[in-house]
Amino acid sequence: MPIYRAPVEDFRFLLHDVLELDKQRDLPGFADLSPDLVDDILSNAGKFCEEVLQPLNQSGDEEGCRFENGTVSTPKGFRRAYKAYCEAGWSGLGAPESVGGAGMPPILTMAVHEMGMSANQSLAMYPMLTAGAYGALLATGPDWMKQHIAPRMVSGEWAGTMALTEPGCGTDLKLMKTRAVEQPDGTYKMNGTKIFISGGDQDLTSNIIHMVIAKIPDENGQIHDDLSTVNFFMVPKFIVKEDGGVTVRNGVNTGGIEHKMGIKGQATCVLNFDDAIAWRLGPKPTPRSTPLGPGEKRSSSAGMAGMFGMMNAARLGVGIQGIGLGEVAYQNGYAYAHERRVGRALTGPMEPEKPADLEIVHPDVKRMLLQARASTEGLRALAAWTTLNISISRSSRPEAETAGLLEDLMTPVIKSFGTDMGFEAAN
Amino acid sequence: MPIYRAPVEDFRFLLHDVLELDKQRDLPGFADLSPDLVDDILSNAGKFCEEVLQPLNQSGDEEGCRFENGTVSTPKGFRRAYKAYCEAGWSGLGAPESVGGAGMPPILTMAVHEMGMSANQSLAMYPMLTAGAYGALLATGPDWMKQHIAPRMVSGEWAGTMALTEPGCGTDLKLMKTRAVEQPDGTYKMNGTKIFISGGDQDLTSNIIHMVIAKIPDENGQIHDDLSTVNFFMVPKFIVKEDGGVTVRNGVNTGGIEHKMGIKGQATCVLNFDDAIAWRLGPKPTPRSTPLGPGEKRSSSAGMAGMFGMMNAARLGVGIQGIGLGEVAYQNGYAYAHERRVGRALTGPMEPEKPADLEIVHPDVKRMLLQARASTEGLRALAAWTTLNISISRSSRPEAETAGLLEDLMTPVIKSFGTDMGFEAAN
Repeated sequence: MPIYRAPVEDFRFLLHDVLELDKQRDLPGFADLSPDLVDDILSNAGKFCEEVLQPLNQSGDEEGCRFENGTVSTPKGFRRAYKAYCEAGWSGLGAPESVGGAGMPPILTMAVHEMGMSANQSLAMYPMLTAGAYGALLATGPDWMKQHIAPRMVSGEWAGTMALTEPGCGTDLKLMKTRAVEQPDGTYKMNGTKIFISGGDQDLTSNIIHMVIAKIPDENGQIHDDLSTVNFFMVPKFIVKEDGGVTVRNGVNTGGIEHKMGIKGQATCVLNFDDAIAWRLGPKPTPRSTPLGPGEKRSSSAGMAGMFGMMNAARLGVGIQGIGLGEVAYQNGYAYAHERRVGRALTGPMEPEKPADLEIVHPDVKRMLLQARASTEGLRALAAWTTLNISISRSSRPEAETAGLLEDLMTPVIKSFGTDMGFEAAN
Repeated sequence: MPIYRAPVEDFRFLLHDVLELDKQRDLPGFADLSPDLVDDILSNAGKFCEEVLQPLNQSGDEEGCRFENGTVSTPKGFRRAYKAYCEAGWSGLGAPESVGGAGMPPILTMAVHEMGMSANQSLAMYPMLTAGAYGALLATGPDWMKQHIAPRMVSGEWAGTMALTEPGCGTDLKLMKTRAVEQPDGTYKMNGTKIFISGGDQDLTSNIIHMVIAKIPDENGQIHDDLSTVNFFMVPKFIVKEDGGVTVRNGVNTGGIEHKMGIKGQATCVLNFDDAIAWRLGPKPTPRSTPLGPGEKRSSSAGMAGMFGMMNAARLGVGIQGIGLGEVAYQNGYAYAHERRVGRALTGPMEPEKPADLEIVHPDVKRMLLQARASTEGLRALAAWTTLNISISRSSRPEAETAGLLEDLMTPVIKSFGTDMGFEAAN
């Protein structure tokens, strides 16, 4: 059976001794962050990941999600574990206290995130996507959404997704085909297909808030290969009224579960939008027919900044997934090398009374394990330092601007290097 | 749908222009090998792989082998394709004419092998294992096996396997637990478990000849951590008498199908030997109780040379699997990069009338494809040159000994580098 022991000691070393969090109490969200509170959060999260999430990892992957009659069911035990996760407050760890969150800074949410990914990526991805979605909603949504929707996502009662990719449209948003047409009441009707939507459907929550990008067509109903027509929308699975009341099922249907290896307990879905009611986020876009003045450029499309904020957090989160998977691969490789016997040490038998020595005596086995450990621990330190810079960039310190630039620089590095090294460690 | 076009032109270039096979007619098996015959074999094998094997690759992997009531069934279409493979003579391409083979040298069998691996690794592995097994049987078996068993393997009527690995025993044969005890009639009774046995069971052939290594216990029934007690055995699924008659089911039972990714149409099995009747191959071993003279070493165990001959061919074959998978990954990546559109060329739009340029315009996409192609074609050339050296080593040329040393040197290089580069190309 695979094992996992949360690297709480390494996080304590990074946060207390390397980054000296106790000297950062001026940063936003750090005021009450005593060393004891940090230790409590780390050790409780580690315990939860070891005892609740990890035992469901292998069974969840073997059973997988099921898709029957248009409905997704998660593997046995996932509902109970998800409920326990939310009740313990992990779903709102980084959310503002005004919407029911614990207001913890990114350096702590990222630590908890890494442990969740090591223990059970399939399950931990559901609340990770929700956190990305409520972050974007708080950044771009109107007051009624902040009041009636965000708190229910923070508590974990509802979940969220990021719905960007389409068949034929990945990185290049100009190629997007999903369209949203404004209705007399100010909402939009959305039609199109999104693919690879993590947590696109599940049976863990009573509603799902999809954060979707789509194009607004011109006056003749044509869509254009023009980024300025791309807008950001909130599309709930069940319609939510402005007073918070929930009414009928929206026109968002699950087309199926995508085939992904190793995270079969995570429902990565095809979502079909059939006249789905959508709420546009951010300022109203300038109509395409408005002529540009001399030298004037059409402003970038509405709410896209919110989408990119969500994407940047997700990119960092994906890098940290790589670190978490590298960690758990290392731990299991280390255990196996101390259990499996093969051959003899080059310097002569280490345990002559046994038929063979342990795998760990062989220099190349040691090298592989040390490489995995060094890259995992080094990347964890880099990610922790980067998330500290996120907080510095939001502070009134003189180095705030520099910290923001460092965050911009390191986010893609951690995404690509973290996943590459996690892959190497697991290989 | 995945595509595959056999690289017949590249093989022709290697065999005619680089290695000049027409000038090697003195080598064993090359006398009748006219350029036209080489071309016929390459183009017919390529056509067979493209038209018969490849169309069953994806469907075979999706359906997978089934294991029910102790019996393995291969995916839909595999039986018919396997029959066509044997009827076309591919199963005996490299076997001596004396046992019904075509007597072709390794440089041609390896070319056909690579194309089979590209087209349908799951299916092509069944006859590949059979060829390894009949090669070992011809090298170590008594006359009655060469007369009554080998020809039925060469024709493909029966299949063969290599059964070496055990739970707890991979590389380090000293740890082996499977035992074979001599019976009054000269056969052995075998008990133990072998794992990861490719083609360990299937419904393609009426009998399977397992080539097995096991330990012979001492006079007190004890097995020892001593390589000199390891012997090589022939264990048929259905008992074969010395006159070639087939009688009852032997005590070899399938415990299950192992979980492997990407070759689910290939039944990699757990095999349980329960009092299975086994025939020892090679010279009779010196009893362990015979004292050694001063400075004398106990000779290596009986028939192990045959096993290592089979293993070396298999190691080269595994490297060529990597080359074949690199080739088919490259071809599909190349096709996708010429079909999928994303972004614009750095030098400006290549097709301004389209919403985006093809993926192939991006330098890093080109780099990845060229890297895959260069490593695949380079390794193919290295493998072809190595297989030519196998033939030289078996000839009366003055450089025969050097060629044998080159074969020894290059076999592990091609195995490890071929599979590493195939993995990189497919990644």
